[in-house]
Amino acid sequence: MSKLVIVGTVAFDAIETPFGKTDKILGGAATYIGLSASQFNVNSTIVSVVGNDFPQNYLDLLSNRNIDISGTEIVSNGKTFFWSGRYHYDMNTRDTLATELNVLADFNPVVPQDYKNADVVMLGNLHPLVQLSVLEQMEDSTKLTILDTMNFWMDNALEDLHKVINKVDVLTINDEEARQLTGEYSLVTAARKIYEMGPKFVVIKKGEHGALLFHENEIFSAPALPLESVFDPTGAGDTFAGGFAGYLASTRDYSFENMKTAIIYGSALASFCVEEFGTERLQHVSDVDLKNRLKQFKELTTFDIELS
Amino acid sequence: MSKLVIVGTVAFDAIETPFGKTDKILGGAATYIGLSASQFNVNSTIVSVVGNDFPQNYLDLLSNRNIDISGTEIVSNGKTFFWSGRYHYDMNTRDTLATELNVLADFNPVVPQDYKNADVVMLGNLHPLVQLSVLEQMEDSTKLTILDTMNFWMDNALEDLHKVINKVDVLTINDEEARQLTGEYSLVTAARKIYEMGPKFVVIKKGEHGALLFHENEIFSAPALPLESVFDPTGAGDTFAGGFAGYLASTRDYSFENMKTAIIYGSALASFCVEEFGTERLQHVSDVDLKNRLKQFKELTTFDIELS
Repeated sequence: MSKLVIVGTVAFDAIETPFGKTDKILGGAATYIGLSASQFNVNSTIVSVVGNDFPQNYLDLLSNRNIDISGTEIVSNGKTFFWSGRYHYDMNTRDTLATELNVLADFNPVVPQDYKNADVVMLGNLHPLVQLSVLEQMEDSTKLTILDTMNFWMDNALEDLHKVINKVDVLTINDEEARQLTGEYSLVTAARKIYEMGPKFVVIKKGEHGALLFHENEIFSAPALPLESVFDPTGAGDTFAGGFAGYLASTRDYSFENMKTAIIYGSALASFCVEEFGTERLQHVSDVDLKNRLKQFKELTTFDIELS
Repeated sequence: MSKLVIVGTVAFDAIETPFGKTDKILGGAATYIGLSASQFNVNSTIVSVVGNDFPQNYLDLLSNRNIDISGTEIVSNGKTFFWSGRYHYDMNTRDTLATELNVLADFNPVVPQDYKNADVVMLGNLHPLVQLSVLEQMEDSTKLTILDTMNFWMDNALEDLHKVINKVDVLTINDEEARQLTGEYSLVTAARKIYEMGPKFVVIKKGEHGALLFHENEIFSAPALPLESVFDPTGAGDTFAGGFAGYLASTRDYSFENMKTAIIYGSALASFCVEEFGTERLQHVSDVDLKNRLKQFKELTTFDIELS
């Protein structure tokens, strides 16, 4: 079975939306990535850190999905990273109410020995130097490296960010971040500038408008599923990335063609994520659920045209 | 051959973009709709009004594309409708610099006798009562009526707008307008509310993010072609509507399936429109150009997925 290394936060989130609010619940980029990737036939590990306040049942929840947590350090006398946010009515914008780094402040990632020859590395949102450290621990046999990041690191650690961007095969960012990173308004031009920074593939996430995949002169456009209601958007981007990485690792096919399919899997999984608070919906997506959602994506995008 | 009635402005536009500016050039919703629809095998007429300042060569340009202009009144001693606007750097927002209604102020549309039994009516952006008057002149044999409108009429003539919305088969508006018209943020819910107002089909235009087609419980999502540069967005929405209407009229198939194809044709034609100022690019789109563009749309959206 393929191996997937996932790096990112494992955290407590407290979320407020127009539909309700939660106390501290399970969150974090690596959590969403891991749960999403566990939908596929892969062995994965989460390289992360939590405090000793992190409940055993959250760790079990990951282990039970065939996620190796030996790479997730538990700091005694440490507190788990905490994020709290409130979504606006349109669900596309949010205010951060609290960010407590806690154990993340001094995090030194260690890739488990067994996973240093993993097929795929998915670098979830974290300080670029942490992401870089994980890459440096990998053996040359790794076939695909994927980097997710955000504007925060462009504002605060741009030089380090460029170091890690330079070393990965795929960069996934949202449209505004692609514009900020390149200074280009056109996403086509932005993708071309990102190629020059290192990555051969660029995935631009557009939220309710879907995603674009760029490679050389080719472009693929995936829709998002139009939804009647979005209950909680937290983790949707990470769930997308996890589905993308998990599908690619499980198929061991890293071509542009297969990445198109991977993006549809990622989009389908993200469409589940937003249906309930936090990771709740992701914890029980059945194969039948996923297949039906993929059918909806097919119907959503299929058209007939004579090009003879 | 099918017949298509087009209603809308025929106008002078003066356009400023970050790339340059024009003097008064040929513009107007009906002009773009007509040029776009003339790409298909249809007889069309433009029901509109101009002043005697409107150049004969602009009228010839329309006639030469097999567009009947006997329904376009020329008011002696009248001045043609004039619009002037300046686009911002992102090309998604613009300021209106001038709007001179001129002959539009007292426009009484008259559908040519020959076109009262037209197959399709495309009501381009104009006062809802003018659009309604055209509908009332049509015979019962008309198969499809399509309405395009904008937020201006929602703000200033909502009651009249509802009268015409109630009488059409298809409503095309942009995403913000759909939200304004229905008070619903979710476009799925908005489309459902619009069904209750009359139309059985709803097309939501999302500019660079493509378009959505809603009918009963079905949804189709069309991408926009990612472009390296948008030279002038003026008329893109009207060009889209013209391609949509022209394709449907020429095929005489008004099913949801065929509307999906019509939306791709409309999107492809709109992608030409923005490449040059005003109608310049639209005036010389060859069949080969169009076919190549349609191929790009096919490549952009095609993915392989096993759903056995």
